[in-house]
Amino acid sequence: MVAFGGNALLRSGQKGTFSEQLENVEQTCEQLIPLIERGYNIIIGHGNGPQVGNVMLQHEAGAKEFGLQAMPMDFCGAETQGSIAYLIETAMERVLCRRGIDRPVVSIVTRVEVDPDDPMFMNPTKPVGPYYTEEVAARLGAESGAIYRKDPKGRGYRKVVASPEPKKIFNIGIVRELAETGCIVVTVGGGGIPVVKDGNGHKGVEAVIDKDLASALCAKETGAEVFYILTDVPKVCLNFNTPEQKDLDVMTIAEAEKYLAEGQFAEGSMAPKVRAGIRFVALTGGECIITEAGQLDNPSCGTRIIR
Amino acid sequence: MVAFGGNALLRSGQKGTFSEQLENVEQTCEQLIPLIERGYNIIIGHGNGPQVGNVMLQHEAGAKEFGLQAMPMDFCGAETQGSIAYLIETAMERVLCRRGIDRPVVSIVTRVEVDPDDPMFMNPTKPVGPYYTEEVAARLGAESGAIYRKDPKGRGYRKVVASPEPKKIFNIGIVRELAETGCIVVTVGGGGIPVVKDGNGHKGVEAVIDKDLASALCAKETGAEVFYILTDVPKVCLNFNTPEQKDLDVMTIAEAEKYLAEGQFAEGSMAPKVRAGIRFVALTGGECIITEAGQLDNPSCGTRIIR
Repeated sequence: MVAFGGNALLRSGQKGTFSEQLENVEQTCEQLIPLIERGYNIIIGHGNGPQVGNVMLQHEAGAKEFGLQAMPMDFCGAETQGSIAYLIETAMERVLCRRGIDRPVVSIVTRVEVDPDDPMFMNPTKPVGPYYTEEVAARLGAESGAIYRKDPKGRGYRKVVASPEPKKIFNIGIVRELAETGCIVVTVGGGGIPVVKDGNGHKGVEAVIDKDLASALCAKETGAEVFYILTDVPKVCLNFNTPEQKDLDVMTIAEAEKYLAEGQFAEGSMAPKVRAGIRFVALTGGECIITEAGQLDNPSCGTRIIR
Repeated sequence: MVAFGGNALLRSGQKGTFSEQLENVEQTCEQLIPLIERGYNIIIGHGNGPQVGNVMLQHEAGAKEFGLQAMPMDFCGAETQGSIAYLIETAMERVLCRRGIDRPVVSIVTRVEVDPDDPMFMNPTKPVGPYYTEEVAARLGAESGAIYRKDPKGRGYRKVVASPEPKKIFNIGIVRELAETGCIVVTVGGGGIPVVKDGNGHKGVEAVIDKDLASALCAKETGAEVFYILTDVPKVCLNFNTPEQKDLDVMTIAEAEKYLAEGQFAEGSMAPKVRAGIRFVALTGGECIITEAGQLDNPSCGTRIIR
């Protein structure tokens, strides 16, 4: 199981054109070749933070300019699953063709069930969508019941949504079977489309499931041996960005939990990756490696989390 | 194989809210129950005309309002595959749960290969995206090489794209295997994301593949016995909307071709459905039935196309 980080698609300093994103994904997919050549079956999870943010802005602008319906966030997330899967399939196919490797790439639209009583719903923290003035945010909040919070950088007010625990990945058995027959499977895009049980079936909720936690669950449920979490640094560090910075080659679950408690890892950045790694290793005894894509070729790459 | 018509999702007179669309899809899925109860394995194809049009408008508005990248049409089509699949999965699950039927629903993001030398690329006819003034359309055309044509109803100028033949559906073997194990599979959304061969792999093109032709190809490749094309009338008619209107219970391929040549069936409406039906029956000897969703329960429903 490989969880693609944000910079697999969009990179700072770029405009985010189609060809830039495709080029970025191609570079990341290129780095998976050593894993494929070692004979691994591969499942890919990916984030969608900037993409779903853009889709929400596009819906907002389309409502203003053309009177179109602005759709709920779960619908916007489903849109990004389609488009990002298309980018990954296109890029991966090119990389495989260049090496003469014949492996199908298949992408599954993926809902993920969360618990409506998840305590995170009482404390939404994930800012999403456009910035508003205080007045507009207050009106929207009163109309919809959504919560708007002041942006710490003073850019206005934004809706905040919950980041609940992923409980169940739909069609996970199919993902496993496809991967076991050699397909490279793309799933849990953006952490999955969050849904809750609703009488006869499930309904979407406005929430963001952490893509690393969803990928950890996917790794566990599909019996993955190794869970790679790709990020933009080669190793997890203590005292990151200070003169005392120390790269970690390996950490036990107990050490990782101690570092988390000390606040060594930034929230919204390395902390959720370490938590997802701990989760996978604790539940399965498998190995989690947090590293940058360019290090996958290196047998001593990244930071291993072990029991 | 069942091809959902446009009104499976959006209906005229509605605003197109999320709950309206979900309700519409649920009604259509409800009508598939008799097929499911007869023991059929089911593959669903669907259109995306209004949806991809809206996404293109949203991209346009997002570029104007927020400076976001307006993405190419293939990317927009991929977005609608994600969102429409999500609607269909949600609706189908509800319908199945109400009946106590346990069948997984799985949606595959689907690219479809077209021939770059398809003659339709020399004669693009399918209007897509926003309306522009003559001046803006001329400038955009000069910048991009795209072709803009005057709207016959005087609403301005719109880009026209080709509607090439679907040649190859990606991952069609997986679609077939999943359907044969009882999964209800959603694929070829919007006729598929059109791509052409490009050195090491495939690249997207701005085009619209007819969803009924793509579904016909999918029906053939998956060995479907029956190909249902759902529309908003119970039967195909001669002299449609005239005092001499005559419902057709059955037509041979030769009759259907004669009626097409006579211009009995409107382009952009019944004509492509009849052509897709002819294609499937001619290639497979299977049966094609064109009807409205509400008639699926009726053993003498719709218009059959036979050899």
